[in-house]
Amino acid sequence: MSGSVSPLAPKSFVAMPALRGVRMITASAGIKYKNRTDVLLMVFDKPAAVAGVFTRSKCPSAPVDFCRSNLSHGIARAVVVNSGNANAFTGLKGRQATELTAKSAAAAVGCGENEVYLASTGVIGEPLDATKFAGVLDTMAKDATGDFWFEAAKAIMTTDTYPKVATRSAEIGGVKVTINGIAKGAGMIAPDMATMLSFVVTDADISASALQALLSDGVGSSFNSMTIDSDTSTSDTLMLFATGAAAADGQAHIERADDPKLAGFRAALNELLKDLAIQVVRDGEGATKMLEITVTGAESDASAKRIALSIANSPLVKTAAAGEDANWGRVVMAVGKAGELADRDKLAIWFGDVRVAVNGERDVTYSEEAASNVMKQQDIPVKVDLGIGNGRATVWTCDLTKEYVAINGDYRS
Amino acid sequence: MSGSVSPLAPKSFVAMPALRGVRMITASAGIKYKNRTDVLLMVFDKPAAVAGVFTRSKCPSAPVDFCRSNLSHGIARAVVVNSGNANAFTGLKGRQATELTAKSAAAAVGCGENEVYLASTGVIGEPLDATKFAGVLDTMAKDATGDFWFEAAKAIMTTDTYPKVATRSAEIGGVKVTINGIAKGAGMIAPDMATMLSFVVTDADISASALQALLSDGVGSSFNSMTIDSDTSTSDTLMLFATGAAAADGQAHIERADDPKLAGFRAALNELLKDLAIQVVRDGEGATKMLEITVTGAESDASAKRIALSIANSPLVKTAAAGEDANWGRVVMAVGKAGELADRDKLAIWFGDVRVAVNGERDVTYSEEAASNVMKQQDIPVKVDLGIGNGRATVWTCDLTKEYVAINGDYRS
Repeated sequence: MSGSVSPLAPKSFVAMPALRGVRMITASAGIKYKNRTDVLLMVFDKPAAVAGVFTRSKCPSAPVDFCRSNLSHGIARAVVVNSGNANAFTGLKGRQATELTAKSAAAAVGCGENEVYLASTGVIGEPLDATKFAGVLDTMAKDATGDFWFEAAKAIMTTDTYPKVATRSAEIGGVKVTINGIAKGAGMIAPDMATMLSFVVTDADISASALQALLSDGVGSSFNSMTIDSDTSTSDTLMLFATGAAAADGQAHIERADDPKLAGFRAALNELLKDLAIQVVRDGEGATKMLEITVTGAESDASAKRIALSIANSPLVKTAAAGEDANWGRVVMAVGKAGELADRDKLAIWFGDVRVAVNGERDVTYSEEAASNVMKQQDIPVKVDLGIGNGRATVWTCDLTKEYVAINGDYRS
Repeated sequence: MSGSVSPLAPKSFVAMPALRGVRMITASAGIKYKNRTDVLLMVFDKPAAVAGVFTRSKCPSAPVDFCRSNLSHGIARAVVVNSGNANAFTGLKGRQATELTAKSAAAAVGCGENEVYLASTGVIGEPLDATKFAGVLDTMAKDATGDFWFEAAKAIMTTDTYPKVATRSAEIGGVKVTINGIAKGAGMIAPDMATMLSFVVTDADISASALQALLSDGVGSSFNSMTIDSDTSTSDTLMLFATGAAAADGQAHIERADDPKLAGFRAALNELLKDLAIQVVRDGEGATKMLEITVTGAESDASAKRIALSIANSPLVKTAAAGEDANWGRVVMAVGKAGELADRDKLAIWFGDVRVAVNGERDVTYSEEAASNVMKQQDIPVKVDLGIGNGRATVWTCDLTKEYVAINGDYRS
């Protein structure tokens, strides 16, 4: 845990509006941390539609297995999240912990165990003692309130230095709906996805299948376009819930994701997902810079993204950013190692508006001073044009600093 | 440039025997460094057979392009290597620099330009002023001697903290032959291959095509099984030369790589390549630990290697090693993210002889103290058994330290 807040943290936090149909509460169960909250309960008093995307790890955590299996049911009534222990690689004990938690939450809320969703974040491989919080879910369910987003975001933090919240509104058929989201994540962050938990709730009335399509689409240019350290967690979970409370204002139920009435909602959701994803990158462990890496002129969008991620994950590019060194040769290296179609002699590279290389060599107008000035910025745009096609992608990452090594060199003890 | 020698450096260096048919000399051309040698000339007075493997980067350096094009000729008479400037991403000027160097070397040695091989290592994107050394190649060619291996290894260093040399001998048809090699590399090191230059010479009489087959085979379990930072250079070059001088002792010329008489030579060559590769890993920028990562029980050898490299390239595994933290959960993470076939519940993990996890959870006999004691060693063996097949691979890497960030955060200036 880092003592100080990321220099890239938001200067102020948005005021999170209450959202009809969901209540929340946090508690301090002492799972790992002292003197802070570490359990979050979300309650949907009426069944909410639910969608989710999860880590692609071949070694997923017990809660990821649990959520995946419930998702086909399509209804959520409760979400329990704990920080401090990931309940990952915990074998039979891990499954027992998810079962106990789900059973306790179902009893507390009055729903089926297949209407409960779980997420855990923290150390891998330590058995999670779910009895620490299972016993208090009953009281928590009674005390949960609607105005708790910021506290909820705090309870799920691990090495995060600030809570991540975002809100957007949109209209569906003339009726105003709200989307609120929280996220956590600071390390072991890479597509697809990140040691990243995020819970997004809307009061719109949308079917589970439409929500799933919206979420699966939206994640591509947000959470799946960011990387802190190329390390993908066992526990990544992004869930989207729709309480349907806006039906009371006359919002007609939306069944299909291709319904034209969803245009504004889709845009607002995508904006919110990107907002949360960038907040995660800006809290990257030890980060002092954010890099926005755009690749254009690639063979395809997918190729552009692989090249952008090769640049974003390069330790040499990231340490150069930490040192404010306009070392564009390392960008060339990272393009070259991506294995994607590229023509060295057509490559051009910009730091901010400063073109540093073109046609396979240093720009004749190259100014070390101009390039270095861009590197001194907190947010550094890097652009690479391959000059061979129309594919493009943008990804976000942070620099690699001594503080990252310090944070991760002694995390467990 | 780091001021101190890697703690993983060899305690002493082997005495390198002279090798008939090759002469060498170094010079200080002031390409970038002050008060040290930075140019190496190797001369083969009689035509030597030659083989090479090069970076898979899509943005190769001008010398890599030059060598690739000469290789079909199969004969080497001179090798010119400079440190301090990679002559990579230098466009037309880069090609002009290789042409000038080759022309000067060919004139100095009295051979064709297609019998000259070139390599450059250092900063990417800066034009290389080849006139700095082209003018002195004439004198160098005259003064070159046979007993210069250690000095040669020193002249090609960049961020290396020690020169890398190795020697082996073998018999071919009862005639003793020698193999000498030098290497450089410390950062931007990853398969396939590394910012790695290596030149290996034998006095055996072997055809170029057989040499190429031996080298292409041998690189898989040596230079292509090591990674320092997952960053693949534009300039990686590994060349093998055979002077044929042993023919004077009665060694019958070897035409084919599958000649049974090559068995001993092949084994000695592979040992030498592995020796040099491990010396490179042990000089990893900022390294304080070497990790030998073995994956067994995978679907195939190729799958095992991809998983081993996923572990070896994980910043979280590498920082845990730096912190002497037996954080096997991060090994689970790295197995999971590799995208290869794996069954979480069959996975077992060892640090040294200490089994820390088995059957998808922490070993019941797990001892934090025993595992931590392994992490205190300078060389840390990590073994992962997937329990699903017979595929296996071993790769080598080093830890990720604050010193790596320091070295690379301000390399250019």
